[in-house]
Amino acid sequence: MTVPASAAPALDPHNTAVLTITCPDRGGIVAAVSQFLHNHGANILHSDQHSTDPQGGTFFMRMEFHLSGLDLAREPFERAFATVVAAPFGMTWRVTYTTEPRRMAVLVSKYDHCFLDLLWRKRRGELNVEIPLVISNHEDLRRDAEMFGIPFHVVPVTKDNKAEAEAQQVRLLQEAGAEFAVLARYMQILSGDFLNAFGKPVINIHHSFLPAFVGANPYRAAFQRGVKLIGATSHYVTEELDAGPIIAQDVVPVTHRETPETLMRLGRDVERQVLARAVKAHVEDRVLVHGNKTVVF
Amino acid sequence: MTVPASAAPALDPHNTAVLTITCPDRGGIVAAVSQFLHNHGANILHSDQHSTDPQGGTFFMRMEFHLSGLDLAREPFERAFATVVAAPFGMTWRVTYTTEPRRMAVLVSKYDHCFLDLLWRKRRGELNVEIPLVISNHEDLRRDAEMFGIPFHVVPVTKDNKAEAEAQQVRLLQEAGAEFAVLARYMQILSGDFLNAFGKPVINIHHSFLPAFVGANPYRAAFQRGVKLIGATSHYVTEELDAGPIIAQDVVPVTHRETPETLMRLGRDVERQVLARAVKAHVEDRVLVHGNKTVVF
Amino acid sequence: MTVPASAAPALDPHNTAVLTITCPDRGGIVAAVSQFLHNHGANILHSDQHSTDPQGGTFFMRMEFHLSGLDLAREPFERAFATVVAAPFGMTWRVTYTTEPRRMAVLVSKYDHCFLDLLWRKRRGELNVEIPLVISNHEDLRRDAEMFGIPFHVVPVTKDNKAEAEAQQVRLLQEAGAEFAVLARYMQILSGDFLNAFGKPVINIHHSFLPAFVGANPYRAAFQRGVKLIGATSHYVTEELDAGPIIAQDVVPVTHRETPETLMRLGRDVERQVLARAVKAHVEDRVLVHGNKTVVF
Amino acid sequence: MTVPASAAPALDPHNTAVLTITCPDRGGIVAAVSQFLHNHGANILHSDQHSTDPQGGTFFMRMEFHLSGLDLAREPFERAFATVVAAPFGMTWRVTYTTEPRRMAVLVSKYDHCFLDLLWRKRRGELNVEIPLVISNHEDLRRDAEMFGIPFHVVPVTKDNKAEAEAQQVRLLQEAGAEFAVLARYMQILSGDFLNAFGKPVINIHHSFLPAFVGANPYRAAFQRGVKLIGATSHYVTEELDAGPIIAQDVVPVTHRETPETLMRLGRDVERQVLARAVKAHVEDRVLVHGNKTVVF
Repeated sequence: MTVPASAAPALDPHNTAVLTITCPDRGGIVAAVSQFLHNHGANILHSDQHSTDPQGGTFFMRMEFHLSGLDLAREPFERAFATVVAAPFGMTWRVTYTTEPRRMAVLVSKYDHCFLDLLWRKRRGELNVEIPLVISNHEDLRRDAEMFGIPFHVVPVTKDNKAEAEAQQVRLLQEAGAEFAVLARYMQILSGDFLNAFGKPVINIHHSFLPAFVGANPYRAAFQRGVKLIGATSHYVTEELDAGPIIAQDVVPVTHRETPETLMRLGRDVERQVLARAVKAHVEDRVLVHGNKTVVF
Repeated sequence: MTVPASAAPALDPHNTAVLTITCPDRGGIVAAVSQFLHNHGANILHSDQHSTDPQGGTFFMRMEFHLSGLDLAREPFERAFATVVAAPFGMTWRVTYTTEPRRMAVLVSKYDHCFLDLLWRKRRGELNVEIPLVISNHEDLRRDAEMFGIPFHVVPVTKDNKAEAEAQQVRLLQEAGAEFAVLARYMQILSGDFLNAFGKPVINIHHSFLPAFVGANPYRAAFQRGVKLIGATSHYVTEELDAGPIIAQDVVPVTHRETPETLMRLGRDVERQVLARAVKAHVEDRVLVHGNKTVVF
Repeated sequence: MTVPASAAPALDPHNTAVLTITCPDRGGIVAAVSQFLHNHGANILHSDQHSTDPQGGTFFMRMEFHLSGLDLAREPFERAFATVVAAPFGMTWRVTYTTEPRRMAVLVSKYDHCFLDLLWRKRRGELNVEIPLVISNHEDLRRDAEMFGIPFHVVPVTKDNKAEAEAQQVRLLQEAGAEFAVLARYMQILSGDFLNAFGKPVINIHHSFLPAFVGANPYRAAFQRGVKLIGATSHYVTEELDAGPIIAQDVVPVTHRETPETLMRLGRDVERQVLARAVKAHVEDRVLVHGNKTVVF
Repeated sequence: MTVPASAAPALDPHNTAVLTITCPDRGGIVAAVSQFLHNHGANILHSDQHSTDPQGGTFFMRMEFHLSGLDLAREPFERAFATVVAAPFGMTWRVTYTTEPRRMAVLVSKYDHCFLDLLWRKRRGELNVEIPLVISNHEDLRRDAEMFGIPFHVVPVTKDNKAEAEAQQVRLLQEAGAEFAVLARYMQILSGDFLNAFGKPVINIHHSFLPAFVGANPYRAAFQRGVKLIGATSHYVTEELDAGPIIAQDVVPVTHRETPETLMRLGRDVERQVLARAVKAHVEDRVLVHGNKTVVF
């Protein structure tokens, strides 16, 4: 054992902002954005950019900057950016502020590992979020949610009530002001109607290395195929099952000794790591979606 | 998201036993052990063996077998083994039974990540243990322990009371019947007196890739050296600081972007994985110590 | 830089043998085999076993033992084993001797990375093989083969001559006494007729993490799906494309920055590592095939 | 096996340049650089930046841009940058052109794995280098060098002739116009005199996870300590042994089964991967040294 330096530092939300941009690539974008920020006293902390093709491709950018030296309030700053920079370059853009934690809803069923991992990371200050509600189709995880002081709503889902259940879920999400939702091994397929009505990003964790083993029972399928690695994939949910833009993936080696049950156990550790990584990237505005793919800065 | 096969299976403790053996290597050991087990109706489930050198080296073996067909009760079975097999080969050996969970004590300070990870894994059935007590030198983690229904004892440690504090810790461990102890980021160095008085294995997690960065503040040292990987090491505690037999190690890649604080955060995930892996191996009697090294089956 | 201990040791082929067994699981197998070996003076170096299910499953075993103390010559030893042990337990078994390198044929097209890697490893003594011939459908790699002193045969393959070309390949393989063949990025699909006529194991390297991206152009498919890992899979070839028993797999992380071309480059390093691992396991008789899966000891 | 898309693409050296900058951090750097490049028609392909501390720290930047639209020739372009941008910000900077491969010298002794790996990668177009010479203290690898058409010089080194031998090495390097040197398991310690006289970067591969196991015989030391991972570290050479700025590191898991010899064999694969990664980063001007650490873009 060892003597520690000091207690782990709590998350310092800093007084920073993140600007993300997507636009057609052409010369002068970086110059225009960085000149604008410099002119208004915004000190750039990190900058990442990517272009699918410098000739006629799409350009992506993420800039994190300090707000302390800014010479404008948020609203006039954003208005000025819209006019001076965004419009001429045809940008899709947004600014988020680290002092305003993102409002994250969590949907769960009976598995606790991904769920508890997210709650713990939030408590430790690893995820800059508030969790205004948890929705489940089962009672099982109520006590865990309540131990962390988070409202727990049960919305049972059956073949017959699916449409109403989803309508109720959307209502709960909207009342809670959820900015995005995480399916922490939620065991129901969300319909296109749900996705449209909610209208916000939904992040899922699938317990395979997609696109291998789409659909139900991937650990059994992995066992039957005799693969030597099992994996997990976190992606944005789209109408097509397990086919949305991938945010993060990882794998662990396995051997002939595994059974579907031990694959499940090994998989749990990968699932929670991969989901946490994806959620953290989303919360910090590091993920830009482009068609069915992601840029993760 | 996907539709699951079924709920995750609770740990089935099976009705099995594990026999571990260490002895001087010579011909006929495997034959003698497997013949003995077969004669008494023990069906072998898994078998692992290792020899440091077939000529004059040390031989290690782990055999897991079903108890259901055994023609003897435990005590006469062990007596027979001692006489018929162990004595002629000069074996150090033991049998443990999976129906009897190992009694694991946990020592903590303020960090929660390794601690909570162990409690979860026990709850999920990943670790075949009972946790009769937690000892801390601080109050901070009392609520977490109590949420899992585990007695929490605070034994403050200062420069002046170290000897008495350790004596009290040993008393608590012995009263609770602890078979081994885990230092889940416990931030005090245990003396040789403690180790002798307790007389049972103590497992530590050190937050570096040993033997690099022994001692205090390994993340700061890693930052200063500019390494491109950080790691964690779980080992048995000996009198010499961070120098005991290593059970498990792992690393994660890092870049120039990290600060000592982000290294700490990244390190937490490795620490808890490595400690859990080491504790699980110990609990399943997979670890045989040989001098300052381990055989991990 | 550092001062080395000594030159790298050449492979010491030892005077050992490997016995592999597959049979229905029932009590007493380990006892019978190890007793037999002990009785005949064979000192066991390594032993691995696996059972798909102790009740009515299949049992697999690999034992490596020294030949120096053996009291019988090879032939009578094998005859005795067949009668005394193998027959009563209904075993499929074989013994291979490390003093007899396996005869490995290599099939290539134009890519050099897997091919050169195998040649190097053979030269370094990592693979206990002889390479009696290389067959290619192109001239490109002739010089590389010849630098290593290996006969290089070109058998052009077109749509029209496929059957005759394969017949010629089989003839070459048989004349060279090939015990198995490795497709080191050989860019033709082998027919069932070829596999039947050759009648020996054929090992392939597929440039994806199977079962994802079966078939042609996996790097392009991986690029289009936007995966965050790319992989390679080495497997035994069966009539169904990319569906044979998997021996080894591995992956590397990739980001949005990659193009199909850079994926190809990154993939090359994984391909050659995975193929080398699979070939080494096969050569050392560590791979037992069971249905469409492998046990890799 | 699978049908390929097409032959692997040869390296397209593009018509691009890389600008790297180190300077005290203050506002406006990104704006000034990107504005300058934009004004002169340089289309930015990739941009990376890093700051050790936005308040009074050091700022690092790497920009890759197309030369096709540039309105100035190289020399006036660099002169203008020096005056307009570099001087006001106190920058240390350089521009390198991808059409001019870097001149890389390789020093070897007897081990072939890192050496051959570099030669192959150069042949495959993975490394944008020319290799004007190889220097060795032994004859062993002459044939390998000559197969790739590279001049091979033997400079024997003994205790008594070290100073003269190093002087001869420096002369050879300078005559060949070497821009940097790679020690591909070169088994002599280079003196400070050598480093000063050569005056160019020297990249080494050390066969351990530094700072663990500095100096001779790291695999034996790893064996004795019983670590569960072994590693390799590529770093710039400084006067202090194995203590220079680290460029790349990696590890592989090992078990109790390994001997110092098998550790060596497993280590070879890590060594060559890590060295190749470091050399590639250096060649593409992705490595900026800062004190005893590196920024690797």
